[in-house]
Amino acid sequence: MPVGTNATVKAMSQDELKGLGAEIILSNTYHLYLRPGHEIIRQIGGLHRFMNWQGPILTDSGGFQVFSLSPLRKITDEGVEFRSHLDGSTHFLTPELVMEIQSALGSDIAMAFDECTPYPATREYALKSLQLTTKWAKRCKESLELRVKSQEGLITHNSKLITHSLFGIVQGGVYVDLRKQSAEELIEMDFDGYAIGGLSVGEPKALMYEMINYTTPILPRDKPRYLMGIGDLLDVLEAVSAGIDMFDCVMPTRNARNGTLFTSSGRISIKREEFKKDPNPLDPNCGCYTCRNYSRAYLRHLFMNKEILSMRLNTLHNLYFYLDFFRKMREAIESVEFEKFRNEWTPILQNNFHEE
Amino acid sequence: MPVGTNATVKAMSQDELKGLGAEIILSNTYHLYLRPGHEIIRQIGGLHRFMNWQGPILTDSGGFQVFSLSPLRKITDEGVEFRSHLDGSTHFLTPELVMEIQSALGSDIAMAFDECTPYPATREYALKSLQLTTKWAKRCKESLELRVKSQEGLITHNSKLITHSLFGIVQGGVYVDLRKQSAEELIEMDFDGYAIGGLSVGEPKALMYEMINYTTPILPRDKPRYLMGIGDLLDVLEAVSAGIDMFDCVMPTRNARNGTLFTSSGRISIKREEFKKDPNPLDPNCGCYTCRNYSRAYLRHLFMNKEILSMRLNTLHNLYFYLDFFRKMREAIESVEFEKFRNEWTPILQNNFHEE
Repeated sequence: MPVGTNATVKAMSQDELKGLGAEIILSNTYHLYLRPGHEIIRQIGGLHRFMNWQGPILTDSGGFQVFSLSPLRKITDEGVEFRSHLDGSTHFLTPELVMEIQSALGSDIAMAFDECTPYPATREYALKSLQLTTKWAKRCKESLELRVKSQEGLITHNSKLITHSLFGIVQGGVYVDLRKQSAEELIEMDFDGYAIGGLSVGEPKALMYEMINYTTPILPRDKPRYLMGIGDLLDVLEAVSAGIDMFDCVMPTRNARNGTLFTSSGRISIKREEFKKDPNPLDPNCGCYTCRNYSRAYLRHLFMNKEILSMRLNTLHNLYFYLDFFRKMREAIESVEFEKFRNEWTPILQNNFHEE
Repeated sequence: MPVGTNATVKAMSQDELKGLGAEIILSNTYHLYLRPGHEIIRQIGGLHRFMNWQGPILTDSGGFQVFSLSPLRKITDEGVEFRSHLDGSTHFLTPELVMEIQSALGSDIAMAFDECTPYPATREYALKSLQLTTKWAKRCKESLELRVKSQEGLITHNSKLITHSLFGIVQGGVYVDLRKQSAEELIEMDFDGYAIGGLSVGEPKALMYEMINYTTPILPRDKPRYLMGIGDLLDVLEAVSAGIDMFDCVMPTRNARNGTLFTSSGRISIKREEFKKDPNPLDPNCGCYTCRNYSRAYLRHLFMNKEILSMRLNTLHNLYFYLDFFRKMREAIESVEFEKFRNEWTPILQNNFHEE
């Protein structure tokens, strides 16, 4: 899922996203709650209409943003008090409010409100934290069921009332037994899908892999399994191997704006001197708009001048690369050739020969 | 002509420009000479190929940029020594070098190198300045003729050698007799078109209008007459009335990035609070992509978040507005209804009701 934090995948138009074959995008409850405010989006007719995106939208619940953006936060059983990263104003997010926001946005997949357990955290803290996440997941589910029953506050997209799929988020820090406990408590409540949260928050990569490999198989195979916020493609290969189905990450888009581009032979930093006179496409094996129409010399020139077109062409390329990678990976899985795919790609993805 | 200073019309793709109906764009000798350097663009195959723009390109000669960007410049008969605005390095531009750069770029219309006379300037200075511009224009013409004869250093676009049209630039400050002298000296040399330069550099508007109205009729009716750097549409109406055929200006694109948008009822600042919940298109009478697909509320949201898509959608709209305005103006001229057109638009263009 390309990430459209503020109701826009940075530098892309919605038509371009569609052209790239993006099937679903992610947007953020937290950001849209603060600005422009979910009631405004509800009045416009929901997020699909607001941003003119016809495909599915998954909205993150805000748990991770409250965790990562707000040093001044206070967590109680009831919810989280935090200061806005925009203007310092105080807000109180509860599971019920988070569900109300997601209903106002009309997201197709809503995420339950969770506490993202930090790293490092003691076993005791991680246990308390996952128990809170379980309680909040329950309240999210009940809140949504009430709203679907009353049909109040739901919005309509393409003549259909959006009732949301709801995913629970597994926490438990880096403790396998706690991951298991969290997963089982959520499965008991029967969500439409399950996410693994609280990873890539500072823990060693080996520990992250251990958690992914341990937790994923516990989650139901017949429901989507979603690893939140991880997009390094080497990590993706590991996670897909474990059984993960869904990903979101700012990596392709943020890297694009910083001039780091993914190619069939490894990562490239477009600002390098060697590209100054290079008339070749960024990646001769790539079929994206950027590679079909522009030289490395032009891409470097745009980047050095901080031109908006630089961010556009780079983002187009990186998203094409990512979506193409995922398409090929799905094909490989269907042909029972995933291991071959992984072996082919691993050395390429390790190749950062142009990194500075 | 939309302005593409650095070989890109800011925020636009070349496909979008084509879709908007842009028939010709302007780019800058000075900027491209400094970065990436004209030899690099020559090696790539010229500016058309470098930036992937198939339509005509007019390149400004650099005279205005040396005038406006370089406080540390020294003008002699031979040329201009100046410091780069990028890194402070010293350069020496001559008419011959400016023509060589424009040949390397492969511009369809090259501008002669001029000294942009500042305002205020004494009659004595303005006279000396226009005489220098005349001398340089002659050297530009001779330099181009030599190059076309030898065919050395010319580049090819669409299998045709680019030999450039060459326009002379009328100077003379705010002295009508000097404007006349400048125009006549250039006409004597027989250029492919004539531009009026050195206006909108700080002089009162009445004086600018006086110069336009006095100078334009002196220039040959059967050749393009181009008023450089002026894009306020009220000024455009005055200039077209005087007989001007061509314009370039950053106004639609720069204003777009600053959130000032042109509509059929006047200028709008998209950041105004009143648009926060406004589900209507920016301009209900506008057929552009932005107005067909997005609400004012979304455009305001993108602008407040400084999103790249804000600059894209705003620029698309403003360029559509400008190009549509010029299309309609041409139709009005052809139907001998220009005065009606001017009377209809004047009050709208004066309407800055949303300006802050």
